[in-house]
Order: sequence, then structure tokens, then C-alpha cells
Amino acid sequence: MTSSGLRRSPEKILLPKGFSFSALAAGIKASGRPDLAFVEIAGGATGAALFTSNRVVAAPVEVGRSSLASSGGRVRALIVNAGNANCATGRAGIQACERVCRNAAKILGVPAIEVFPSSTGIIGVRLPDDKILAKLPELIQERAESVRGVRDFAAAIMTTDTRPKIASSRFRMGSKRVTILGIAKGAGMIHPQLATMLVYLFSDVAATPGELREFLRDACGESLNCISIDGDTSTNDTVLLLASGASGVAIREDRTEFAAALTGVCQSLAEQIVSDGEGVQHVIRLRVAQAGSREEAMLVARTIAHSLLVKTAWAGADPNWGRILAAVGRSGVPVDPADVQIFIGKQRVCSAGVACSFDPRQAHHALARPVCDVRVTLGRGRESVRFLTTDLTAEYVRINADYST
Amino acid sequence: MTSSGLRRSPEKILLPKGFSFSALAAGIKASGRPDLAFVEIAGGATGAALFTSNRVVAAPVEVGRSSLASSGGRVRALIVNAGNANCATGRAGIQACERVCRNAAKILGVPAIEVFPSSTGIIGVRLPDDKILAKLPELIQERAESVRGVRDFAAAIMTTDTRPKIASSRFRMGSKRVTILGIAKGAGMIHPQLATMLVYLFSDVAATPGELREFLRDACGESLNCISIDGDTSTNDTVLLLASGASGVAIREDRTEFAAALTGVCQSLAEQIVSDGEGVQHVIRLRVAQAGSREEAMLVARTIAHSLLVKTAWAGADPNWGRILAAVGRSGVPVDPADVQIFIGKQRVCSAGVACSFDPRQAHHALARPVCDVRVTLGRGRESVRFLTTDLTAEYVRINADYST
Repeated sequence: MTSSGLRRSPEKILLPKGFSFSALAAGIKASGRPDLAFVEIAGGATGAALFTSNRVVAAPVEVGRSSLASSGGRVRALIVNAGNANCATGRAGIQACERVCRNAAKILGVPAIEVFPSSTGIIGVRLPDDKILAKLPELIQERAESVRGVRDFAAAIMTTDTRPKIASSRFRMGSKRVTILGIAKGAGMIHPQLATMLVYLFSDVAATPGELREFLRDACGESLNCISIDGDTSTNDTVLLLASGASGVAIREDRTEFAAALTGVCQSLAEQIVSDGEGVQHVIRLRVAQAGSREEAMLVARTIAHSLLVKTAWAGADPNWGRILAAVGRSGVPVDPADVQIFIGKQRVCSAGVACSFDPRQAHHALARPVCDVRVTLGRGRESVRFLTTDLTAEYVRINADYST
Repeated sequence: MTSSGLRRSPEKILLPKGFSFSALAAGIKASGRPDLAFVEIAGGATGAALFTSNRVVAAPVEVGRSSLASSGGRVRALIVNAGNANCATGRAGIQACERVCRNAAKILGVPAIEVFPSSTGIIGVRLPDDKILAKLPELIQERAESVRGVRDFAAAIMTTDTRPKIASSRFRMGSKRVTILGIAKGAGMIHPQLATMLVYLFSDVAATPGELREFLRDACGESLNCISIDGDTSTNDTVLLLASGASGVAIREDRTEFAAALTGVCQSLAEQIVSDGEGVQHVIRLRVAQAGSREEAMLVARTIAHSLLVKTAWAGADPNWGRILAAVGRSGVPVDPADVQIFIGKQRVCSAGVACSFDPRQAHHALARPVCDVRVTLGRGRESVRFLTTDLTAEYVRINADYST
């Protein structure tokens, strides 16, 4: 995140070695746009994934989690469809997902458990797996280690996104170069019956699944786990990190360098997701500091970020700090209001739980910019958290209230 | 709550014995409308109150709670202002509130701790107590045991309410008649910088403060604690129950009858509050059943009622049960999706966590009515909860995003 604002458009795309990409239209999206995306790692990859915390999980999440466990974290290919979440589809949904993986695996000549599936789109509707199976040979045939392939992949997994989300980083580890490429879609559950944040991270570093899991958890804790548009957790959320090893460098040769690059890529994707949220006019970089623990800081940040009254005030660029203070008060953290300070932009607007002298026009102008900093200090300790969130606009309601049946 | 819909307009107003009401304009509301309201119980009353669970509490909540404790639950008068919440106003706010109580007490010739204060309105702005003090003699002079006085009181405590909220009940306890009258305003925090649900319940039953506390807690558990418009808890919420004893009947003579009548009055006020919520088009009577405990049922009901995606679907009368299922899944209750059923109106739309055959047009029409029943069964036990909530419309956002500084 730069001080001048959030990075919105994909920068130069850097390709890690060992990954081939393709995408095409299989007729799942009603629009007829590309909706099926594929990646092969010819030499095989190690992988680790994080999944939604929702108790209701889609079929590809169940299948993907189980396949990763059975294969010992070995991944040869990734197949993603948009336009249908394959969620709340029962046993038939699992079977449809397994059929897609099995067919792709047969073409590639690998075990089915080495094909990782993802889906995003409408909930509760049968996956049209016949359409996917019919296109599989062409999809796999078209794969290429190219920037064009990456762009096609990023476009095909979009649902309500208005732009593709890509970030990459290249850096030295010892004498060799390592690359990390990330592709993402969506932001929370932000569209009628459509769902899901999907994030794929590809690197040519060499690593065990256990190492990848550890790096992925740390990187997401500082990025993709600290964003919220509407507070609704999808049933399909998936973050997958794959390592081809093709750079010839082991992750343990420079853990710090790799962790920093991976966190940077995840933060860029998180910013791209939030700023592309439905109806979003303002992105808020919320910082909650002086908490007694990281959990306290997160609880306060989430309560502020999910308050309808705070979010609607932000939509109007209204420096209404009383709503933020009230959200802090109901967060469940035993805060003493007399220790609370609130800052909007560069100004302190509330000190010791009461109004301080500030220029409301200047605070209004700060909130009217595309990105604004809001900081809350609790006076309880030394822990803090950064949280990216958004305003709530009438446009969000309009989009999500459209009667879709 | 009747099956034909929610009661919206005040029915015949029944006066309990022993209470005199008055109201006038003191110049606190910018509109110049009545904003100061008063009740005297000439013979004195016993009282019990419930207050906001927010850690940030307004000055009148602190003063009222402390006065009730000091007086042993003895209340001679109630004074309420709208247009200023007297919250986040520090030590000066407490002093202003105490000044108002002290002056009213002096005119009435009673201890200041027997005057109960309430405020509602903008947060973080000094209470103009000089305006209140100037009007106190006239306000107290005008008090009357009249329906007109009740209507004036109910209108003066309104902020963003579009209509006054009054409910009453008269019933026999043994050979005598007892009356309960309730007056309320607001619903959650639903307006820029304005806040608060205030509910006053007056009865001529005779009861100790301890008895009143018990009845009040039970009645609210089935009514005012089961409503939500925007999920934001105000800093000023107050529910006060006063008993004059003027009927000559003790509450313990027929506990069941009194409890039922009190719950009925509270439920009517709860319905009036929800249906008058900002921008509300549809009221949803949500029932969560087959929970393992009442806490589980409440957790699931609150998660559904606060989900932006569920609320926006309701605004569009969209029978999008996938969003309800996803909210159940992230509620924190370890629900097995395969045990979940969802009903919209009279139709079952989801069974065993997957779609069932239903008529979406009929479900759309059910949701398009002013009041619709939505039922979720969890298959975990025998506990259930009824919860009144609303849709989320673009009008709500428009009202709350208006830049108000």
C-alpha cells in the first residue's frame, strides 16, 4: 500500500517458471463470457490452501481439501469455473466436482487427487458439469506459459468484478531469482447469489507443503484476512499457494525475503479486491492501535468495519466520530471510553472519549478522497491491526436487491 | 402480533391511575418541534430499568442508573429531552443532567434522586441545559392525567420516528382493574448522529422494584430484546417500568395475568418500532427453531438479521435462500447444513441444506408483502426464538449518508 493511494491496475506481470495457463467460455455464465480456467504445473507442484470458515462449504472446497490431504500436498493442475458455486448441491454436487477432476486427470495422465478444483457463482443450482467435460480437451490443449494465459485466467474467474486482479513480485534469493504471481477475484459475498473470494498464488520456489502452509497463514494474516466489504463470509472462499520448484531455490534459503514478497503480493490483491467492491466509493484504511491483544484489535476493527451507521457515514464523507465511538463501545472489548482517541485523516477528532476541537471541513475532505486513513487508539496495550474496508452506498443495495429469480 | 400484519397505529389509549403527562418545545430540536417531556407520579412510584449494553453510555444513563440505586427504586418524576443525547460529553454532561434533575426536584419538593432523566439525539454535543431549565416551571405546571398529555409526551420524544408509538392494556386482577401504558421512540441507531430506543412503561399495579425488575426482564426478552434494524446498539437505550400502586392491586395477586399483559404491550411497541425503521419497506418475522439452546437460536437469528446480503435480498423480495443458509453457516453455531430447513411464507425452499422444489413466484409475492414470515430450523434441539427485523433499502443508506456537519 503506497501513501498516494491503493494500487488498482495490474502492473507488469512477472511469470514464475513451471506454470501454464488457459481459459475459455464453456457456457456456464449466462453472459457467454469466458468462465473456465486452467493451470498445469508440468513438473508438479507442492501446495497449501486456506478455506472458508463457513460451516456451509461448497463441493469443490470439500473435494479440494480432501485431495490435498490424500496427495500429501501434491498438485499437478488447477481447474476453476465461474458462474456456478456448486454449493448447497448435496451429494450430486460432490460427484459432479469429482467427475471434472477425474476427466482432467485422465487427459493429463495423473491421479485425480492431483487436480485441485474451485467454483464461484450462484448457490444452490446444479453444476453443469457436462458443459465443462465437453470443453476440457480444448482447455488443456490451449495452456501456455504466457502473460496472455495469465490475463485470460484472471478474466475467466471474474463474476461481479469490474477488473481482473493480478499482482507479482520478483526478487533474489541467494544467487538466483524467484517469482511470485497472484491472481484473485471477488470480495466477500457481494452479489445476488454470487459469492466468493478466490486467490491463487504461484511461485517457482521449492518448498514442502508444510512450509507453504506456514508462509501462507502468515501472509494472509496481514492481508486477505484483514479486509471486509459486507461482512458476509462466502461458502467457497479459497486461497491456494503452489510452488513449482523450477527456480532451483529452496524457500528456506531466505525465509525473510520470500515472506516479505508473498505478503506484498497478498496485500496488493487485498487492496485490488476491496477497491473493486460492489458500489464502493471510498476505501478506508482502518488502524486500531493500543489494544491489549491482536484479538481485541481485530474485534474492534471488525465491529467498526461492519457497522451500517459507520459505513453509511463514510459514504457521505461525514466525519461522524460518535458512530465510531459507539461501535467501539459495543465491540465486546472492555474499553474505557475515557481512554479512546479517534483520528480521521491527519486530525484528532475525539480525545478521552469526548469531542476535541477539529476542522470538520478538513475531515470531510479527507473522507471524500478515494482512500482515507481512520485510526482508533484504545489505551489498553501495545497491539494493533490494519484493516481495509469500504463505505456502504445506495448502489450496493441497488445491486444486491435486484430480484434475480 | 396478529396474523394479518403488524399493528402500526396507536389503538385506544388506556390511562393507568396516578400518572400526569406534559410536553413542550424548549428549542433543543433544530426544527422547533416539542422536545421536552415530563411525567409526574404524585403518589410516587416504584421503578426498574434496563439500559444499553454499550460500554459507551450517555450521561442520563449513568445518572438514572445511579439515582435508581440510591433511591431504592423510588421514582417521583421522569424528564426526557429529544434533540441531544448528552453522550460523549464528559464530566460537564453529567453535571448538566444532574442540574436538570435537581431543578425539577426542587419545584416538586422531592429529592433529586427521585427524578429519572433520559436524553436522545445528537452525540458529542453539549446539552443546552439552560434551555431546559428555563422551561421547567411551565412544563411541570402543564402536567395532566389525560390522553392528550400522553400523546404530547409520545410526540415530544420522537427524533427520526415518523409516528408516535403507544400501546396499552387493561385487564382484571382479582376483583380490580389494572392498566399498563407503554410509550416508545426510535429503533436502534438509525439516523446521522441520532440514537436510541427509549421505552417507558407505566402501570397502576403495586409492586416492589425487585418484582418490577423480574417482570421487565422477562417481558423484554420476548419483545424489545428480539428486534434489530441495523445492528447498532445505541449509547442511550433505556427501558423504564414504573408502578404507581394506584389500582390498589399488588402484582403478586396474579403474576401470570400481569406478565402476559406487560409482554403484550412490549411486543406491540417492538412491532411499532421496527415497522417505523428508517427506509423500511418490509418487516420480517424471523423464527429460528430446533436450536440446542436459546443462545444458539439468538446467535443464528442475529447473524441472519444483520447480514447485508440477506437484508438487501429482502429489499428486493428475492427468495434467495442461499444467502440465509450462508449466514447460518457463519453464525458460530456448529450447525450441520444437512439438518437445515428454510421456509419463506408458507413454502419450504431449502431442505437438508439443498434446494427443494418450490414456486419462486409465490415466495417472491410473500416477501413483497409488508410483513413476511421466514423460518429456519436447525435440527439440533427444541429451543426457538422469534425475532423481528427489516430489509435494508437504498433509502436507509441515503438517509444515513447525508453529510450532516
